[in-house]
Amino acid sequence: MSGTIEQAAQALLAADNILIITHRRPDGDTTGCAGALCRGLRQLGKTAYILPNPDLTARYEQLIAPCYAPEDFAPEFVVTTDIADFGLFTENAKPYEDRIDVVLDHHRSNRMAASVRVVRESAGANAEVVLDVLDAMGVTLDTEIATCIYVALSTDTGCFRYSNTTPDTLRAAARCLEAGVDGGELNRKLFEVKTWARFQMERIVVDTVEFLRDGKIALALIRRADIDKTGADMDDLDSIASLTRQIEGVQVGITITENKDLTCKISVRTTKEVDASAICAKCGGGGHLRAAGANLSCGIDEARAKILEAAEQVYAESELA
Amino acid sequence: MSGTIEQAAQALLAADNILIITHRRPDGDTTGCAGALCRGLRQLGKTAYILPNPDLTARYEQLIAPCYAPEDFAPEFVVTTDIADFGLFTENAKPYEDRIDVVLDHHRSNRMAASVRVVRESAGANAEVVLDVLDAMGVTLDTEIATCIYVALSTDTGCFRYSNTTPDTLRAAARCLEAGVDGGELNRKLFEVKTWARFQMERIVVDTVEFLRDGKIALALIRRADIDKTGADMDDLDSIASLTRQIEGVQVGITITENKDLTCKISVRTTKEVDASAICAKCGGGGHLRAAGANLSCGIDEARAKILEAAEQVYAESELA
Repeated sequence: MSGTIEQAAQALLAADNILIITHRRPDGDTTGCAGALCRGLRQLGKTAYILPNPDLTARYEQLIAPCYAPEDFAPEFVVTTDIADFGLFTENAKPYEDRIDVVLDHHRSNRMAASVRVVRESAGANAEVVLDVLDAMGVTLDTEIATCIYVALSTDTGCFRYSNTTPDTLRAAARCLEAGVDGGELNRKLFEVKTWARFQMERIVVDTVEFLRDGKIALALIRRADIDKTGADMDDLDSIASLTRQIEGVQVGITITENKDLTCKISVRTTKEVDASAICAKCGGGGHLRAAGANLSCGIDEARAKILEAAEQVYAESELA
Repeated sequence: MSGTIEQAAQALLAADNILIITHRRPDGDTTGCAGALCRGLRQLGKTAYILPNPDLTARYEQLIAPCYAPEDFAPEFVVTTDIADFGLFTENAKPYEDRIDVVLDHHRSNRMAASVRVVRESAGANAEVVLDVLDAMGVTLDTEIATCIYVALSTDTGCFRYSNTTPDTLRAAARCLEAGVDGGELNRKLFEVKTWARFQMERIVVDTVEFLRDGKIALALIRRADIDKTGADMDDLDSIASLTRQIEGVQVGITITENKDLTCKISVRTTKEVDASAICAKCGGGGHLRAAGANLSCGIDEARAKILEAAEQVYAESELA
């Protein structure tokens, strides 16, 4: 069933011993939402924890690690933040698949089952949904909670640059600044500073990117050997996914990353002319209109062929053909 | 004298045949403010024009060029937007120096004289001041006016990333989106799209950058032969100056560009630990704390030696030595 902000707030207010789950390869939105919700629930006097996420990177550590559930925590109520699909659960979250009470998300592809399921596709970041729930519960937006919300808002919208940024995103961010968030310093760390590993990976990408369809499609292959050589982590790699779309004339930027087991993760970033989720759907993936992804169990050369075929099909089906 | 938003609005409402002046080397804020104010005054039935700015680049052309005053326009009332000092007047604005009626600005260094002088230092962009004046005059924020305001807000705050972004900046931007501005597409053009020439130049920079002083100094040389090969223009080159500072651990990012006559232009970008203007001052240049420059009449190898020596001296003189 589906639900409203008010229903989610009422369900949470009636609950205690709450566990919050974030998705695999956690980003700023899933961790920021979980961090804000957990701290908000604690402010109301509840016992709340976040399920440890084995994929967590240093970038978002402060948002959720201090709230990690101890091993013996026995939750009575389970919430997911920013998770579109059970396939995005980490291994240690799988035992909770059949007992999700509240889903808070903003992915149009959301297929989660829960008692109360709030999915606001129009939200730039899921943190807008979480902020509304916190408001509905009467939580005060303190600096710590506002920091979690701000990181989620800014990282999911390219620091308010992308087309998914809405008036609500900006007004929520305004409230975070008023709550004491140092936006300038946070953004410098999140968006400006490049780690050495990322700098090296960027060098490899710009040196090897290939252009197809008269420069409308740009394709970058990130091989495991290069990742190992540079020591790049998931955050370094994630930020590289949007590089190819930045080049003049490129409508579809595709990045294929070799996983450790040599299967592949595909990231697709598009300009407004092309639907990224439609391309990824053809490979069993999904996501947003301008940013989507897919996981392929094949090697990098086969993955390259498959995603290029998918992109060509989407072009063929559209007016742009 | 100084004045309030209300006084500026009343003065403008009582006036007609209004001329709006922008500053030299016009940016998004001065042009966005002028474009919004001119269109707003016209919406109220007034005759209003913008003084042609001889420095205008293609980037901001649509904001003000359609509103340029004809040669025979005889203004009765003169407004400046985002101009801190008469020294920033273009040549064709000098005749109006003694007859400025309203000053709308946000620079703390503002030294302009006028009948009504609104200077809001706290504003991230001067467009926040102009939007308040438009509101006070009863102007409807249509898509065209909102586009001008949005460009001003976003370009003056690094697309809401820098520390000068305030809650007011974000709320003003939210209103612009509601008025129909396609923020994602505008930002893509303003902040994301890299021309082919710039992409090629970046490739050269990341392939050749050298690191000194344990990675605290990054130095990039941009040779004339590469500029000619890629066809990069000044806008392409300007945006490259900040690349080196973005790398983790770099405190001083130096870019040396060979001019056509093989003399050199030096750009220095620093993090908060080091004073960029102090480094450039040692080579006869100057600028701001974090962004400065110098022109050297020598060749690129000599320029490299000179600026590195200057950087070393500044390190030696500081606590960081």
